[in-house]
Amino acid sequence: MPNIVSFQQGNAAMKQLLGGKGANLAEMTRAGLPVPPGFTITTEVCRRFYDGGGQLPAGLMEELNQSMRELEAAKQQRFGDPMQPLLVSVRSGSVTSMPGMMDTILNLGLNDETVKGLAVMTGNARFAYDCYRRLIQMFGNVVFDIESHHFELGLRRLKRKLRLEQDSEIPAEGWIELIASYKAVIAKEAGRPFPQSVSEQLELAVAAVFRSWNNHRAQFYRRLHHIPDEQGTAVNIQAMVFGNMGGDCGTGVLFTRNPSTGEDVLYGEYLMNAQGEDVVAGVRTPVPIAKLKAEMPDIYEQLFQTAKALELHYRDMQDIEFTVEQGKLYLLQTRSGKRTAQAAVKIAVEQVKEGLISHGEAILRIEPFHLDQLLHRAIDTDRPLDVLATGLPASPGAATGLAVFDADTAEAWAREGRKVILVRSETTPEDIHGVLAAEGVLTSRGGMTSHAAVVARGMGKPCVCGCDAVGIEGREFSVKLSDGRTVTISEGDQVSIDGASGRVIRGAVSLREPVLTAELSELLAWADEIRTLQVYTNADTPEDAAKARHFGAEGIGLCRTEHMFMQAARVPVVQSMILAETADERAKALQQLLPMQQEDFEGIFRAMDGLPVTIRLLDPPLHEFLPNLEQLVLQQERMSHNPAVEPEQRAKLDSLLRKVRTLHEMNPMLGTRGCRLGLVLPDIYEMQVEAIFRAAVQCKQAGMDVRPDIMIPLVGHANELKRMRELVVRTASEVLGKLNHAADCISYQIGTMIEVPRAAITAGQIAQHADFFSFGTNDLTQMTFGYSRDDAEGKFLTHYVETELLPNNPFQVLDQDGVGQLMEWAVERGKTVKPLLKTGICGEHGGDKPSIFFCHAIGLDYVSCSPYRVPVARIAAAQAQLTAPNVWK
Amino acid sequence: MPNIVSFQQGNAAMKQLLGGKGANLAEMTRAGLPVPPGFTITTEVCRRFYDGGGQLPAGLMEELNQSMRELEAAKQQRFGDPMQPLLVSVRSGSVTSMPGMMDTILNLGLNDETVKGLAVMTGNARFAYDCYRRLIQMFGNVVFDIESHHFELGLRRLKRKLRLEQDSEIPAEGWIELIASYKAVIAKEAGRPFPQSVSEQLELAVAAVFRSWNNHRAQFYRRLHHIPDEQGTAVNIQAMVFGNMGGDCGTGVLFTRNPSTGEDVLYGEYLMNAQGEDVVAGVRTPVPIAKLKAEMPDIYEQLFQTAKALELHYRDMQDIEFTVEQGKLYLLQTRSGKRTAQAAVKIAVEQVKEGLISHGEAILRIEPFHLDQLLHRAIDTDRPLDVLATGLPASPGAATGLAVFDADTAEAWAREGRKVILVRSETTPEDIHGVLAAEGVLTSRGGMTSHAAVVARGMGKPCVCGCDAVGIEGREFSVKLSDGRTVTISEGDQVSIDGASGRVIRGAVSLREPVLTAELSELLAWADEIRTLQVYTNADTPEDAAKARHFGAEGIGLCRTEHMFMQAARVPVVQSMILAETADERAKALQQLLPMQQEDFEGIFRAMDGLPVTIRLLDPPLHEFLPNLEQLVLQQERMSHNPAVEPEQRAKLDSLLRKVRTLHEMNPMLGTRGCRLGLVLPDIYEMQVEAIFRAAVQCKQAGMDVRPDIMIPLVGHANELKRMRELVVRTASEVLGKLNHAADCISYQIGTMIEVPRAAITAGQIAQHADFFSFGTNDLTQMTFGYSRDDAEGKFLTHYVETELLPNNPFQVLDQDGVGQLMEWAVERGKTVKPLLKTGICGEHGGDKPSIFFCHAIGLDYVSCSPYRVPVARIAAAQAQLTAPNVWK
Repeated sequence: MPNIVSFQQGNAAMKQLLGGKGANLAEMTRAGLPVPPGFTITTEVCRRFYDGGGQLPAGLMEELNQSMRELEAAKQQRFGDPMQPLLVSVRSGSVTSMPGMMDTILNLGLNDETVKGLAVMTGNARFAYDCYRRLIQMFGNVVFDIESHHFELGLRRLKRKLRLEQDSEIPAEGWIELIASYKAVIAKEAGRPFPQSVSEQLELAVAAVFRSWNNHRAQFYRRLHHIPDEQGTAVNIQAMVFGNMGGDCGTGVLFTRNPSTGEDVLYGEYLMNAQGEDVVAGVRTPVPIAKLKAEMPDIYEQLFQTAKALELHYRDMQDIEFTVEQGKLYLLQTRSGKRTAQAAVKIAVEQVKEGLISHGEAILRIEPFHLDQLLHRAIDTDRPLDVLATGLPASPGAATGLAVFDADTAEAWAREGRKVILVRSETTPEDIHGVLAAEGVLTSRGGMTSHAAVVARGMGKPCVCGCDAVGIEGREFSVKLSDGRTVTISEGDQVSIDGASGRVIRGAVSLREPVLTAELSELLAWADEIRTLQVYTNADTPEDAAKARHFGAEGIGLCRTEHMFMQAARVPVVQSMILAETADERAKALQQLLPMQQEDFEGIFRAMDGLPVTIRLLDPPLHEFLPNLEQLVLQQERMSHNPAVEPEQRAKLDSLLRKVRTLHEMNPMLGTRGCRLGLVLPDIYEMQVEAIFRAAVQCKQAGMDVRPDIMIPLVGHANELKRMRELVVRTASEVLGKLNHAADCISYQIGTMIEVPRAAITAGQIAQHADFFSFGTNDLTQMTFGYSRDDAEGKFLTHYVETELLPNNPFQVLDQDGVGQLMEWAVERGKTVKPLLKTGICGEHGGDKPSIFFCHAIGLDYVSCSPYRVPVARIAAAQAQLTAPNVWK
Repeated sequence: MPNIVSFQQGNAAMKQLLGGKGANLAEMTRAGLPVPPGFTITTEVCRRFYDGGGQLPAGLMEELNQSMRELEAAKQQRFGDPMQPLLVSVRSGSVTSMPGMMDTILNLGLNDETVKGLAVMTGNARFAYDCYRRLIQMFGNVVFDIESHHFELGLRRLKRKLRLEQDSEIPAEGWIELIASYKAVIAKEAGRPFPQSVSEQLELAVAAVFRSWNNHRAQFYRRLHHIPDEQGTAVNIQAMVFGNMGGDCGTGVLFTRNPSTGEDVLYGEYLMNAQGEDVVAGVRTPVPIAKLKAEMPDIYEQLFQTAKALELHYRDMQDIEFTVEQGKLYLLQTRSGKRTAQAAVKIAVEQVKEGLISHGEAILRIEPFHLDQLLHRAIDTDRPLDVLATGLPASPGAATGLAVFDADTAEAWAREGRKVILVRSETTPEDIHGVLAAEGVLTSRGGMTSHAAVVARGMGKPCVCGCDAVGIEGREFSVKLSDGRTVTISEGDQVSIDGASGRVIRGAVSLREPVLTAELSELLAWADEIRTLQVYTNADTPEDAAKARHFGAEGIGLCRTEHMFMQAARVPVVQSMILAETADERAKALQQLLPMQQEDFEGIFRAMDGLPVTIRLLDPPLHEFLPNLEQLVLQQERMSHNPAVEPEQRAKLDSLLRKVRTLHEMNPMLGTRGCRLGLVLPDIYEMQVEAIFRAAVQCKQAGMDVRPDIMIPLVGHANELKRMRELVVRTASEVLGKLNHAADCISYQIGTMIEVPRAAITAGQIAQHADFFSFGTNDLTQMTFGYSRDDAEGKFLTHYVETELLPNNPFQVLDQDGVGQLMEWAVERGKTVKPLLKTGICGEHGGDKPSIFFCHAIGLDYVSCSPYRVPVARIAAAQAQLTAPNVWK
């Protein structure tokens, strides 16, 4: 394998070896585009650089010099020649684009002698010394690690002295003076002079670029984007062209389409008489590309044609860097342009219509995760925001409203038509009605999978979690700003949150509504034609169900019945059911709950007419519906000191406390919940089944096509499902009998969550009693790892992810080696016993792209996710089919 | 397959079809022993009886009548013949012995006519009518379900009227009068007369015996002994012989050796002029068998010879029923005799010496579980015990001492030499020093796997758990007895517990010390020759280690270091380590703990000189070492109302409460514990490793062979073990360096617990960093099932086992389908990656026989169990090898 590849030799397919930039420069060169000559030192050399402890491999310099000789021949200049000096740029270029993360040195090859030659050669001494001072600064920065402010200080002093405002006004003599002071900075900070030998310059620069692969921000970026450390960077050495040699020079960046809206127009900006860096650094304000048409019509036309040609060549929107040197256009870089979700959708759909790409390619162009931007409200303002703090971006979307500090106030104010943001240290199931009433939720504790986060995502409400800068005291919170000021937000004050970025903002902000654009709808329709994986939704209310259906959900994969128990009006009935001392008392409370539940189900059946609705019977431990133990203990203690309290009040509290203690569990996650409840207290499940079938009959009589599926939670042993199946079948036929309907008038299925490791392991036994499996990957992850969601984050899990012990938070990205292995086993064993077994996933992973790919690969029939994630999942499912055809079907 | 098999046709090998009793009667008949003629209706017929909804299969009665004809021919009598009536017994006989659980009817064939014939035939009217009244009573009882007291009432009235004391004094006329009243009882209670047709009697009796397979006590017994419901019972019909025909008659039971001590003498008792039932019913007191030698020397001699022959024939100690009818010996039954553990060992060893059985057979004769009786103290008294209540038999052994109600008092009193029983509602890790100090533990809450139970078993202390009849209030407990009295035991009162039966006894009782008898030692030596599975022990103290070594442990498989943190003197240091605000403060506390831990390890290494010691680094969550959150909240509330409290006292409590809240977890079982602690706070593990290696060097210098193995708990991802391994290796080499020792002077291994499902699933990855795997099946069961040990029992798990949803409590008997499947995978994958990987089990299942069999089958290298279980495991491991040769080796 060669260590160095010239732009003539390379091509776009050599991206692994040459990096993205090098491969593209070679590709453009091969296409006959005007690219300054150059070559690439491969990523393989970078790996050897690190293997060798940060030394350039032996022999590399000889090859490098040989390549420089070829460059000299091409440019008719010589490196270090005092008359016709060749100048080069030395740039990083990784396989995966990491914009701005690594280092670049321009104008390499200048020294005290060659600068004079450049001045003569270009007839522009001012330009030549400007180049030289730029080199010294960049070199000091990149090679010797000297902070920029040392150099900026000198420049500021010079301008003060010359009484000038703009760098462009400084004459050659000014730059010469500055060069002397820059050299002094180098000597002082680096302990050695700026090297006058150009080949020493080159060697030091190449090593420095390799080193920059491991600088702090590059490492951070790689971790963030899951780029392997072993990939390494290439180094591109290219003859310099100058956009700053005079009025017929310039430099700019260009997108072949508008990266923000997707519109098919050239988009970009440029600066006359400047180097690329001036554009990036923001020292001067660049001019929109459209102006170039007037300023340099030939160049504009050439650029326009080149842009079209490049788009055609790469079959994607391009992000191009160009320089005009004395009226001649050079292309310095082209790559696929980054774009907003909106632009991505529009460009992909239009490129299909232009015949450029296929439906499948269009779908693969979309990063499903970015669609979130389109599907939620966003902040829509140019005003600077008064950001108070940043928490975890727990549920996307922006919201604005009055701060309230408890669920009851949230509900009361919302009923009066006021928009509110619920602010809590953390939420509990008792706050659900408050979350429902609020525009968004802000908590000071808890992670991405805390109760507030999970519930908010389920409801599609914006949520910022674990914002520990927010100190809540009673009915206000305060934030200490970095400047030392403390801002206090009291109940009723306007506050805004952005659940996509985690920002907490003082005051109201204007919001932009999400829309399913025509292009997105078209793209989704193509995705539906391609994908084999169905997309269901998790929805607990008719509103959510309708929303999900609008977004294309093909059924409800998870309808949680516990949230129906949490509505404020129902909590007392639910509590009296739990606190009942006798079966009779409990039966009475259940009879009160029955019509409420029936109404819930009717609403959902109506919204999902013709589609399956998978209803999970009650899952959480009963104590979640009761007051907090610690609070009760305190209350009891206080009552004992209060002579005004009536004995029966005391007795009532004592009895409540006793019951709460009885139900209290050391590890509620592993306690009496799910079907364990259904087995110990079957009457609750019987009531729920009765409500389902009464609702089904009502809707059927109203002419609807009702398709209820009943799902048993937390099964770990086949016998649990067997008995629960018996209970459902028996209760259903009793209810239908009472309503004078045949037992088979409503067709329904009975299935189970697979969320306990043992259920996955013994899936063959369990499948005998199941019509479907639904993987509850939240709980399955908890138990397979032995991580409590409530505790892990903020304690050890954050530490694990930060120190790269784990590649990801397994509650966000499905752990394929562990949890996924169990799923694969379960599907295989389940389908062996029952080939027509329906399988799906209803954990939060159902909306995550790699997890959807995995679900597709192991042959699941559907994924179920929150309503707003349905379009995301439709795209991801199609991508999965396009990239990894389903091996099971 | 025949429905009916005569005694001449059957043999001992046909036990599945004929039941134990039928097969043995046939075997004895074939051996020429004096067995009354008869035949057996097979267990297959019983299954068809139940499949047919409780109806005798069609055609059975014809076959039955045919068999009765053959019996008539053999006995020269006719069934229902008024002159020479044939009488038969109808008895159940299941495959697995279920003594007394099912029904029997004797004297069948008597009616108002045949009774006269019997009187003439035997010349004994009194005897004939006695038989008849017995038949009516048993028939009423078994066939018509009439309770005994209806009949007993009539008998008592008759005796009062005749002014007689003994049944044997009642003349024929008395019996005739009683028969009339018995018939009236039948007519009234059953609504139909006692059947005079003998073939109707037979048909009803056979059906009733089949029905008795499903009576309540038989079902209960089967569940208790894991006998499958499908096994069914056979019915044996046999010509009657009479032990009650006069002074030359009698009946008795006989063991061929003493079933209590194992001594090689005939053991048993008999009654002259009686039916077998009289022996069982305890109406008359039977006479020791030795007296028969004087009373009927010929019969005794014949019996002696028969006993020896039967023992030789069956190669095991026999339990024989016999009847002497007019001077002629008949054998009615023989079966392997039940025996105490002590007898079982003695008999097995002596039978080997007699050349009767092999070493292997001797080992297979021992039920390992019963050895527990020999290895713990037992109650040794003939006085009636004052049993107050019965709880769960949580840890075997008996103890007696003064009741104390908190751990500190237990420790203080024990230090003064007083023996104490620690009584708590439940124990927590803070009570450990109290458990250590006490003779035994009694709790009113918690199950077989509660903290108290686990700790007590680990220490070999007797424990009775979950005894909810015990109401603890402050420093006393009271029990409400069934007679309405309430007994109160105050601190300092004598109380005793029997951890094998769960009994709580008022006052002191005398105890018998356990001994490893010469016979048991010999048997264990044979087991050691046979077994391939090694037996390690779980031991946390030098005392336990020494005890286990005495019992034959070949190493320590689990040395828990947290118990070392729990000693009263250390708790403040441990707390200051946890509460440290800075790394420095924590380091100081750890430095204080270091010499203490070092001393612990030195003691254990000394006790295990030459054997491996597997030390598990700290496992439980830190909050277990801190005061209880609820208590602190209450304390804070009380302080806030107490003006006398100093501000700094208040601040100290506030700060403590804050820390406890920080460490508080919703689900501590799934929280920050095990290696998660080691990763987040590495200095604790570093201290422990330092202590281990300092101790190892000390012991090595004292000439010992030290073999420390270091075990990392709660690993779920290979990276966790990788990092912990690095920590151990680094710390060990640093410590050894500081002590001027080479890094390889102590040879040690580093391994991991496999107790998180993900660890088992990804065992191939984890094995790359492990020298050994130790299955922590307690936690593995918790997470695989999703059952919290602390919560499941007493809530849903008891319900699950009682309703047979689960075959067993999976914390007691390893769940092979789920947890076992994970273990099998882990061993397979681990050994694929590392063929020499050492594997073992250190959960409580390590002492359970079926679990040991399973561990042997999947190829583990060792099981580790509590010291007292070591002999049990040695026997079970040998049995596993004898019955299922290891397929892995």
